[in-house]
Amino acid sequence: MIVVLKQNANEERTKQLITWLKGMGLDIHISKGQYQTVLGLVGDTAKVDMELVESLDIVDSVKRVTERFKCCNRKFHPDDTVVSVGDVKIGGGHFCMIAGPCSVESEEQIVAVARAVKASGANMLRGGAFKPRTSPYDFQGLKGEGIELLKIARQETGLPIVTEIMSVSDLPLFEDVDVLQVGARNMQNFDLLRELGQTGKPILLKRGLANTLKELLMSAEYIMASGNEQVILCERGIRTFDDYTRNTLDLSAVPMLHELSHLPVIVDPSHATGLARLVPPMALAATACGADGLIIEVHNDPIHALCDGAQSLTPEEYDRLAKKVNAVRGAVQ
Amino acid sequence: MIVVLKQNANEERTKQLITWLKGMGLDIHISKGQYQTVLGLVGDTAKVDMELVESLDIVDSVKRVTERFKCCNRKFHPDDTVVSVGDVKIGGGHFCMIAGPCSVESEEQIVAVARAVKASGANMLRGGAFKPRTSPYDFQGLKGEGIELLKIARQETGLPIVTEIMSVSDLPLFEDVDVLQVGARNMQNFDLLRELGQTGKPILLKRGLANTLKELLMSAEYIMASGNEQVILCERGIRTFDDYTRNTLDLSAVPMLHELSHLPVIVDPSHATGLARLVPPMALAATACGADGLIIEVHNDPIHALCDGAQSLTPEEYDRLAKKVNAVRGAVQ
Amino acid sequence: MIVVLKQNANEERTKQLITWLKGMGLDIHISKGQYQTVLGLVGDTAKVDMELVESLDIVDSVKRVTERFKCCNRKFHPDDTVVSVGDVKIGGGHFCMIAGPCSVESEEQIVAVARAVKASGANMLRGGAFKPRTSPYDFQGLKGEGIELLKIARQETGLPIVTEIMSVSDLPLFEDVDVLQVGARNMQNFDLLRELGQTGKPILLKRGLANTLKELLMSAEYIMASGNEQVILCERGIRTFDDYTRNTLDLSAVPMLHELSHLPVIVDPSHATGLARLVPPMALAATACGADGLIIEVHNDPIHALCDGAQSLTPEEYDRLAKKVNAVRGAVQ
Amino acid sequence: MIVVLKQNANEERTKQLITWLKGMGLDIHISKGQYQTVLGLVGDTAKVDMELVESLDIVDSVKRVTERFKCCNRKFHPDDTVVSVGDVKIGGGHFCMIAGPCSVESEEQIVAVARAVKASGANMLRGGAFKPRTSPYDFQGLKGEGIELLKIARQETGLPIVTEIMSVSDLPLFEDVDVLQVGARNMQNFDLLRELGQTGKPILLKRGLANTLKELLMSAEYIMASGNEQVILCERGIRTFDDYTRNTLDLSAVPMLHELSHLPVIVDPSHATGLARLVPPMALAATACGADGLIIEVHNDPIHALCDGAQSLTPEEYDRLAKKVNAVRGAVQ
Repeated sequence: MIVVLKQNANEERTKQLITWLKGMGLDIHISKGQYQTVLGLVGDTAKVDMELVESLDIVDSVKRVTERFKCCNRKFHPDDTVVSVGDVKIGGGHFCMIAGPCSVESEEQIVAVARAVKASGANMLRGGAFKPRTSPYDFQGLKGEGIELLKIARQETGLPIVTEIMSVSDLPLFEDVDVLQVGARNMQNFDLLRELGQTGKPILLKRGLANTLKELLMSAEYIMASGNEQVILCERGIRTFDDYTRNTLDLSAVPMLHELSHLPVIVDPSHATGLARLVPPMALAATACGADGLIIEVHNDPIHALCDGAQSLTPEEYDRLAKKVNAVRGAVQ
Repeated sequence: MIVVLKQNANEERTKQLITWLKGMGLDIHISKGQYQTVLGLVGDTAKVDMELVESLDIVDSVKRVTERFKCCNRKFHPDDTVVSVGDVKIGGGHFCMIAGPCSVESEEQIVAVARAVKASGANMLRGGAFKPRTSPYDFQGLKGEGIELLKIARQETGLPIVTEIMSVSDLPLFEDVDVLQVGARNMQNFDLLRELGQTGKPILLKRGLANTLKELLMSAEYIMASGNEQVILCERGIRTFDDYTRNTLDLSAVPMLHELSHLPVIVDPSHATGLARLVPPMALAATACGADGLIIEVHNDPIHALCDGAQSLTPEEYDRLAKKVNAVRGAVQ
Repeated sequence: MIVVLKQNANEERTKQLITWLKGMGLDIHISKGQYQTVLGLVGDTAKVDMELVESLDIVDSVKRVTERFKCCNRKFHPDDTVVSVGDVKIGGGHFCMIAGPCSVESEEQIVAVARAVKASGANMLRGGAFKPRTSPYDFQGLKGEGIELLKIARQETGLPIVTEIMSVSDLPLFEDVDVLQVGARNMQNFDLLRELGQTGKPILLKRGLANTLKELLMSAEYIMASGNEQVILCERGIRTFDDYTRNTLDLSAVPMLHELSHLPVIVDPSHATGLARLVPPMALAATACGADGLIIEVHNDPIHALCDGAQSLTPEEYDRLAKKVNAVRGAVQ
Repeated sequence: MIVVLKQNANEERTKQLITWLKGMGLDIHISKGQYQTVLGLVGDTAKVDMELVESLDIVDSVKRVTERFKCCNRKFHPDDTVVSVGDVKIGGGHFCMIAGPCSVESEEQIVAVARAVKASGANMLRGGAFKPRTSPYDFQGLKGEGIELLKIARQETGLPIVTEIMSVSDLPLFEDVDVLQVGARNMQNFDLLRELGQTGKPILLKRGLANTLKELLMSAEYIMASGNEQVILCERGIRTFDDYTRNTLDLSAVPMLHELSHLPVIVDPSHATGLARLVPPMALAATACGADGLIIEVHNDPIHALCDGAQSLTPEEYDRLAKKVNAVRGAVQ
């Protein structure tokens, strides 16, 4: 960690700061420049509160040399993590196609969609049972009943199931779910992350709308520090000034996360764009830049089908897309 | 609600959409323009999923005419809500000064700070017991013990206490807390909001880092729709490209929230800027544009005192600020 | 255009507004809802100042039904525009590979890079002669001399040349340049755009750091309304809170611009990411989502070569990338 | 300047980098840590291209210890700059009230508004003659004629005049203008800035929509490095995800700019919010946090008056606001 002091920093206070830092067992290298003095902190700097030091009146700025994420840091674990869900593998060259409806609505619906996406090559089934909604007046999902319907679809097709958990208190209902998803709004629900660290189950962790890659990795760290190394990262769009798409899909996060971390990285083009017609091009782009998988909304219900609706693809559109995804994977290898 | 159809929208699908909307009990007014057709939806449009309609391939855009927040909407409740915490009132002309340390650390600390801020005119005490931290390796607060220490400080000074709750499962520990704070990262933790709606206690709801005012009001709506009308809104900075301050304090949110809602609006200049030296000017600015109160960090512990530290003010700085806040309140009335 | 009035809008003022609008030759359809009244404006609404109307105290919001860009709007020109630069075509299925150094430095450098990229399949040469720099103390480019060197490289290789123009007063120096580039910082330098509209030359228009797609199209409109239809749009990253890459490359802009406009859309992954190692994955992603071309920095000078430097690729890296771009093009067709 | 090398950075390349840096006349201090090596660069580092070094594959990150702005840096010029415009002074305790219509429309209009705002205490007159408009189809201002009308208003009232310049080629028309304004879209029109540096006239420099404070100061540096020290900085809102106001007024920029620079800082609440009813609260907030002045739109023309329109205040509203601004100034001194 490097601490840059202000020009003419009060000497007395500078000494106090150095004494305080040494008290944490750190070595301090001091180098005086023309306008400013720089302190180099050597030792276990993870325990130093960077924001506190940065805000001292004698300090100009602070720079961490070593990132604080350890479990998910590629520096310390150079090989790709491969997450296993039954026979399905994600990461380290294994590509994963997760698909299914936005919400689980009925047995007929979820089984029909599961069969369709399986036929197109999907190897995992998604479907919302607990739905985070901005408005308390919107449909909040079938909850426990939705999970039961997902299990039926799994039995019928053999596809492992992925579904979102919103609260620690719902954990018992997810005991037989294969992959637990943490939604963007809960990326920093630290109590939930810690509990999920103790489940031992694969966790699909979505990036928050306004969270940096470092914050995403620190949230993965909450899960991993609790003992669970089965974490899949997911880019799903960030909030910007842009007004044509719902969010801005930040695809450079894919190669950057691969550089910073050994965890697999998948992309959700459905939620990122909010528009079905943008899902195929962005799914292909995600594949081209090295994503380890895609999570895509597919529906077969009449209201959506009515108008090629929403952000969900029809089974036919998904089938065409899946073929192109395979072609792009071949092209970039 | 207004639905603008695309030029040359498929007629069959347009009919299907209209039939589906009528099926929800809505009246549909159709007006055909030169390039586009516009549907006016009349009736209870709150149940229409705007994002779904917007994403249909025949739809260009959708505009809600009536906002979906009802409980907190000034249109339906023109008079200011006044939240009462013991003898302290917030909103409707009542200004509230909440102050205290970032974290509760010891009885000596919290009692000393409570006495100091009371002497300067603060009428509520804040202090973190449960701390949301980006890193699992950072100090997470004294938790239950911290709440007990806050109660001691309340007994010593008579100041009601405000502290953050992060999880539904901790609720029993907060039974004797006066105001429960929902932090920025939990603004859309909908399960928590719903539960807080059943406590009947005043809730201080902070705006999320990347949330619009409408989303903040929809989160207030979760609390209020569960039966609790005692909600205080809090602006605490949003995330932007700006890199000199920690967040960008969005002060125009204060008059805008007053226009949209009858709830009191306070400002947290400490977390917004992250720099003690910016707290006084931004606290005065918040007062000048009509905030109903301020929540400010004040410390008295030696590590901070060492260097005028962090985002917290010393008791002396707070005292000087409190006098100026009063002067500005006089000037703008 | 749709004007939503506020609940209880003053009747007198509403009448005045309607009279004023009718005075512009518009028909006004009035529909009264339960809470609000909506005015539908029919006729040539392009001349109505939307911001002025939106800010009136009786108006809740305004929505344009017809976009204000006409020349570049796909609605009025459904077929793709194909821009021709000598034998090179861009758009409508023609893919364009523009490559070259960040700055033109010497004859040896620019000729060597031009030969290398041509051998890898590039069909246009880029190189900065006038450089926009944040700091007045940074190198500002070789200016007129740089353009002369580009012409030499064109003579040696036959590649048409693309270079940035920053000021109307430099126009005479660009008389023999094939494609004039407008940089992100000048996207709303309206005087420059208007002048470029009179050159008849192909213009490569980069999106500004904080500009919406609509604003980009309105800037294209400045050029086209002055009589020049040869405009190439370029996505090059937007400014967000993200801190790992220099900008956030907004690739969903590619299919969205194709939907809104008939103009060709290319992508600049070098400036967007600022990191050479991110250029290949993002170039492939841009190709996969339908870009009509790529503009990429390639260097051969010793300072960069020293350390595989900067955001520029070496000729060898560019060669490998070009082959993969072709493979991805084949995969997505 | 501090250069942090990557773990296991190639030794050969590290040596080459050090040799290259030494070749610029810099001293290099090397300190090896457990995971990374840090280079401290001592000497005139202003000429080192930080982005180039940062992008080298052996480099983790780079940090400048000394800012690159020199002329406007408070470190080197601790005393406030006071800009003089005739008898009017701005900065160093002198508060400046600039007011006037959005666009100059006629002699009657500009003279009437000038008289009204002068009576309320304004000491400078603003009015747009050249108008930057997103759309080529919008009114672009009266141009040269508008400047002539401003001069008439100056003659009638004695108020110095401020108006926006968009292009170097228009400079002759501005010879008799008192303060030249650079709009947000031109903040990085470097050719224009350089030319304005040679006029010797006071320049009002508005912050760009997506520009950091450092970039604003670097743009001021362009003007000052060309010999003109009369620069007034202006905060006018930045672009964020926020959708209720036109831009997000970043008031913490005011104290932060005062800390970084000795130049005066004023605020434009009219353009920042786009809504007349938000102008008074935000003007008071700007005053409370230490702004050196306000630039506010005031109209008297019938179209606006019709409905209390747009972002402009009526003369009566401006008069009430001016009184409160004075009261707040008294309260915070």
